[in-house]
Amino acid sequence: MDKKLPVAILGATGLVGQRLTELLANHPWFEISALAASDNSVGKKYSDAANWHLPSALPDSIRSMIVQPCEPRFDAAMIFSALPSEVAGEIEENFANAGYMVSSNASNHRMDVDVPLVIPEVNSDHLDLIRVQQARRKSAKRGAIICNPNCSTIHLVLALKPLADQFGLKRVMVTTMQALSGAGYPGVAALDTLDNVMPYIKGEEPKLETEPCKLLGKLEDDRIVDAKIRISAACNRVTTRDGHLETVSVELEQKSNLDQIRQSMIQFTSVPQALKLPTAPDHPIIVRDEPDRPQPYLDRDVEKGMASVVGRLRECSVLDYKFVVLGHNTIRGAAGGTLLNAELLVAKNFI
Amino acid sequence: MDKKLPVAILGATGLVGQRLTELLANHPWFEISALAASDNSVGKKYSDAANWHLPSALPDSIRSMIVQPCEPRFDAAMIFSALPSEVAGEIEENFANAGYMVSSNASNHRMDVDVPLVIPEVNSDHLDLIRVQQARRKSAKRGAIICNPNCSTIHLVLALKPLADQFGLKRVMVTTMQALSGAGYPGVAALDTLDNVMPYIKGEEPKLETEPCKLLGKLEDDRIVDAKIRISAACNRVTTRDGHLETVSVELEQKSNLDQIRQSMIQFTSVPQALKLPTAPDHPIIVRDEPDRPQPYLDRDVEKGMASVVGRLRECSVLDYKFVVLGHNTIRGAAGGTLLNAELLVAKNFI
Amino acid sequence: MDKKLPVAILGATGLVGQRLTELLANHPWFEISALAASDNSVGKKYSDAANWHLPSALPDSIRSMIVQPCEPRFDAAMIFSALPSEVAGEIEENFANAGYMVSSNASNHRMDVDVPLVIPEVNSDHLDLIRVQQARRKSAKRGAIICNPNCSTIHLVLALKPLADQFGLKRVMVTTMQALSGAGYPGVAALDTLDNVMPYIKGEEPKLETEPCKLLGKLEDDRIVDAKIRISAACNRVTTRDGHLETVSVELEQKSNLDQIRQSMIQFTSVPQALKLPTAPDHPIIVRDEPDRPQPYLDRDVEKGMASVVGRLRECSVLDYKFVVLGHNTIRGAAGGTLLNAELLVAKNFI
Amino acid sequence: MDKKLPVAILGATGLVGQRLTELLANHPWFEISALAASDNSVGKKYSDAANWHLPSALPDSIRSMIVQPCEPRFDAAMIFSALPSEVAGEIEENFANAGYMVSSNASNHRMDVDVPLVIPEVNSDHLDLIRVQQARRKSAKRGAIICNPNCSTIHLVLALKPLADQFGLKRVMVTTMQALSGAGYPGVAALDTLDNVMPYIKGEEPKLETEPCKLLGKLEDDRIVDAKIRISAACNRVTTRDGHLETVSVELEQKSNLDQIRQSMIQFTSVPQALKLPTAPDHPIIVRDEPDRPQPYLDRDVEKGMASVVGRLRECSVLDYKFVVLGHNTIRGAAGGTLLNAELLVAKNFI
Repeated sequence: MDKKLPVAILGATGLVGQRLTELLANHPWFEISALAASDNSVGKKYSDAANWHLPSALPDSIRSMIVQPCEPRFDAAMIFSALPSEVAGEIEENFANAGYMVSSNASNHRMDVDVPLVIPEVNSDHLDLIRVQQARRKSAKRGAIICNPNCSTIHLVLALKPLADQFGLKRVMVTTMQALSGAGYPGVAALDTLDNVMPYIKGEEPKLETEPCKLLGKLEDDRIVDAKIRISAACNRVTTRDGHLETVSVELEQKSNLDQIRQSMIQFTSVPQALKLPTAPDHPIIVRDEPDRPQPYLDRDVEKGMASVVGRLRECSVLDYKFVVLGHNTIRGAAGGTLLNAELLVAKNFI
Repeated sequence: MDKKLPVAILGATGLVGQRLTELLANHPWFEISALAASDNSVGKKYSDAANWHLPSALPDSIRSMIVQPCEPRFDAAMIFSALPSEVAGEIEENFANAGYMVSSNASNHRMDVDVPLVIPEVNSDHLDLIRVQQARRKSAKRGAIICNPNCSTIHLVLALKPLADQFGLKRVMVTTMQALSGAGYPGVAALDTLDNVMPYIKGEEPKLETEPCKLLGKLEDDRIVDAKIRISAACNRVTTRDGHLETVSVELEQKSNLDQIRQSMIQFTSVPQALKLPTAPDHPIIVRDEPDRPQPYLDRDVEKGMASVVGRLRECSVLDYKFVVLGHNTIRGAAGGTLLNAELLVAKNFI
Repeated sequence: MDKKLPVAILGATGLVGQRLTELLANHPWFEISALAASDNSVGKKYSDAANWHLPSALPDSIRSMIVQPCEPRFDAAMIFSALPSEVAGEIEENFANAGYMVSSNASNHRMDVDVPLVIPEVNSDHLDLIRVQQARRKSAKRGAIICNPNCSTIHLVLALKPLADQFGLKRVMVTTMQALSGAGYPGVAALDTLDNVMPYIKGEEPKLETEPCKLLGKLEDDRIVDAKIRISAACNRVTTRDGHLETVSVELEQKSNLDQIRQSMIQFTSVPQALKLPTAPDHPIIVRDEPDRPQPYLDRDVEKGMASVVGRLRECSVLDYKFVVLGHNTIRGAAGGTLLNAELLVAKNFI
Repeated sequence: MDKKLPVAILGATGLVGQRLTELLANHPWFEISALAASDNSVGKKYSDAANWHLPSALPDSIRSMIVQPCEPRFDAAMIFSALPSEVAGEIEENFANAGYMVSSNASNHRMDVDVPLVIPEVNSDHLDLIRVQQARRKSAKRGAIICNPNCSTIHLVLALKPLADQFGLKRVMVTTMQALSGAGYPGVAALDTLDNVMPYIKGEEPKLETEPCKLLGKLEDDRIVDAKIRISAACNRVTTRDGHLETVSVELEQKSNLDQIRQSMIQFTSVPQALKLPTAPDHPIIVRDEPDRPQPYLDRDVEKGMASVVGRLRECSVLDYKFVVLGHNTIRGAAGGTLLNAELLVAKNFI
């Protein structure tokens, strides 16, 4: 790539926006041309507007950028949306209608029939839904919205993908232990989390029970036919900073054995690896054989936070097999996933 | 009861032993006649030997008791064992053989065919296995061992009992988020738990998958016929002090509806309530209807830590229903459970 | 007391308001006649308006009370104010002007020259400032405002009081490690406190450096002459739920020795103990001799949270002596302190 | 340097040993030739013997090294000692006597009159004490021991050094809030630290009150004349993983003003910066002007954990000035400090 593509970040001051800014600060393909956020940040220097929560230091060139309003007037080849769902729906449509390609982390449009919901290792072919979206939403010119799934969904589906491909998936039970950063900032009150677990995350379980079926579904003609998988989720908030941990049990269509399951995960590689996308992990699934891994503190940052880490693979006496999966929720589960989607769009010439 | 029964505590200096001491310090039926522990505590004042971890204050009469060796020479009508499993097996047998009734919290003898594994609300009739045990182990005189189940098992089975009785249980999936006190003291290293979850607790899952089948089994002639329930468990250690939280999904034999399930739990009452045992909770199962309860910090101490608190009762798309259950792990899940077993023994004239 | 006095709580839904409600739910002298809070709580049942954060259960009679606006129209002999400082100043004046006696936890009027700032064990005679206040503020009828000091100040000054009396105080250095509940709810964001310490609490250090001088000052004629003590404070927020811990070094006017210092604290008793006020601790200062006490988790609830716990008393190579003091910040440091002030008002016939 | 110098690590399996191994794995001057530890690790692969607690991955070449006994038979130009103090004293002497240069993190020999206690930015000239040590301890050949101070001392003294040089230091009060990793692994029990602060760290305060006087002392003839500074320390353990936070008040000999104090710290640079030692931070003292910094989570890793971060510089009403200092306790405060000492030894031709 001769020249870096200019990109803008919507919702740049929030936790996911900060992660995106961090990841894009030294990206080989993209360079930040605009940082945008809500009215009370507009006009401020980014370093003043963002209550920076990451230990890393930002380049001065970015720290001193003036925060812009979220209006579709940017010199940008790609828009990253880290907006909260209260406002993301309409703003993202405005950008798409104005001809921008929007890679979104928000939940609003994920289940729209003409919006690709994409994990590049799982369903990169769903990007063709962009043509449908552009045809249907006449005003869109070359603009479109593509979505990143929920932070817990991404790591669940990454771990399930090789099983779905090789053995067929029938039923999945998952209990999550999700990190604080998933609730943004200020997010969870310290008094709710010290010496405590919150056994409920508003709106989370339905996402985890439906998004995987779209992700593992098939693009037929101009629509996604959802995978026929029954999923039951129980979502909890625990006292970790980053890294969602999930206990998973699966029922397969074709009987297999533990070693085959394990091998299917270890050997799993896909489009982003083949295309050598800059943010793609070498190994999208890491399998640990120690009895007490993965652990959030020790394993969330492997492959720069872009892999899912599987452990404790064993038989399940109710369904067929069970395991634990861990993944970084604000990197691969949000900012990094959105970025990988954008890299895929470039590599596939949607930009 | 005219005069209090003298009782001794084995393993009195550990966390569960401390809870037992606390619960027995003002008990209407029992009074502590001896505190026993391992060699490095023997001969010390109890307050010096026990690294006391509870905010409550002990009576001076107990603080100044001299710790005894775990040898069957006590003036005691009942022995409470809070011994670690490394030594409990043989010591408890020694006491039973010497004619003492031992109410144990240790795992060693739980699955012995002639040892009753008892939750008084669930299977008080299993106490009759004591006759079998005494007959089989000739030397036992009037002594015997009865066991308390694992701390996670107790709360799971308390919540399952009304479902098993009224609807029949086929399959159960459970993921636990267990408190630090379950590992004793010093137990878990702070560095392993700060900003982390341990997805593994050694030996815990097999207990949770087998003990409920014995507890919900039927005493036929002189043996327990295990309930035919398939259980799959995933056990995790989280950063709470007390209170094990469990997400549970169940498959029932007879189809039911959410309201019937809920009512069966709310209305559940059993032998300890009918006998008005001193440590029995008024309501062994508390059902909370708020979306975000039970929480360990807020709910573990309800009914003085002797109840199981159920919440988030809802349908499960993989099995039939799912819910969350929370219970205090060192009170009902250990010391309080052992004490309630002892009260049941007295009320049923086994002492 | 033949009949309980009706009392109202302003700011009843916040953390301190909840503690007050809890303490007043079964009080021998007072009964709650009204619970008041801000507009978005008015008209709701108390149990719906307050996000109840305490493990204890409330009586149904209080749970079902309808929250009132903070207007001086209550049938109440005493008003407790747990209002935030943003609104407390004016509302408390409105009540005082309307003839109510207001026992306040807010900081607004603490340093007013005609408002008694009181710790009953320290300066109960300052209550006579009420006559000055009533004379000066003509409209006050029998109403007045009396204040409770800052939560860290209370425990610092309780520990300093016997030293000031017996040895004279010249200089004090204090570093606090304050609990999360001091910031209210939602208060501190979990992400700011997990694996972190906040070395700054807005507005806290000036309070800790000035309030003790008024508290330890002398009422002369119609004004308080501040004690001449130089105090330097460094305030930090740590990850405890309740219990402010403070390291303190003092310089005394008369040289002493460690045993005299220790005895002065152990033997300290004062007006509330003499008057047997219902909420008064038997021992306002507890001295622990173990090297590693007091600890917030183990010691904050001693004397029902109404005592200050001192430990690690030793010589200081820069000033004269140093020690650690711990106290419950929302009980004695706030709600319980406000209540003890109200009991003192009753006992001294100001009501 | 043409060829890397072979080095050995004693106590390589502990927390500080792991940090040393990590820092040395890709060092430009040194390469690890041996990893040594106690008997129960000897003969095992390093990755099996060390319960690896750092998120970073080690090179396979190091993971597979076989752990050696701590006997002076290594092919090594430098010995790093991360031994616990129970055994460090004698083992380090054995190595020094056998002709090895030992850069130690242990406390045993720190206050020996002929052992240099060194922070390279503070007292690099004290290295000349090595000649004294070698002359006095005849058997030492070219071997010697040099020591790194206590983890809290290092950051305190780094921050104090420019003040001592420019304004003279008379008295220092310091309260520490120290991280869990300072106690090693398993170290602090989780139950002691959850919702708690430990107001005592065994043996820590005397180190903090004496080591700075040696560090800031003057080498005269063949001995160190201690600086005449009175220091009072109060040490606490809080629930952070890494990063000791300290509140500090100082009394100076020459009166100054806040801006001069601030400038002296910002502009401070010393021998390691001039010599461009590989592990030296560009800025040994970072000054933050925000009111709420430094914070352990956000600031401990600045300059790769090798700097001290100062904030909240302000006047003190008891002494002259006060501030907060934070530093990484296992990097600059231990492993990194020991490594920087070793680099200084090389640069100064002691190797």
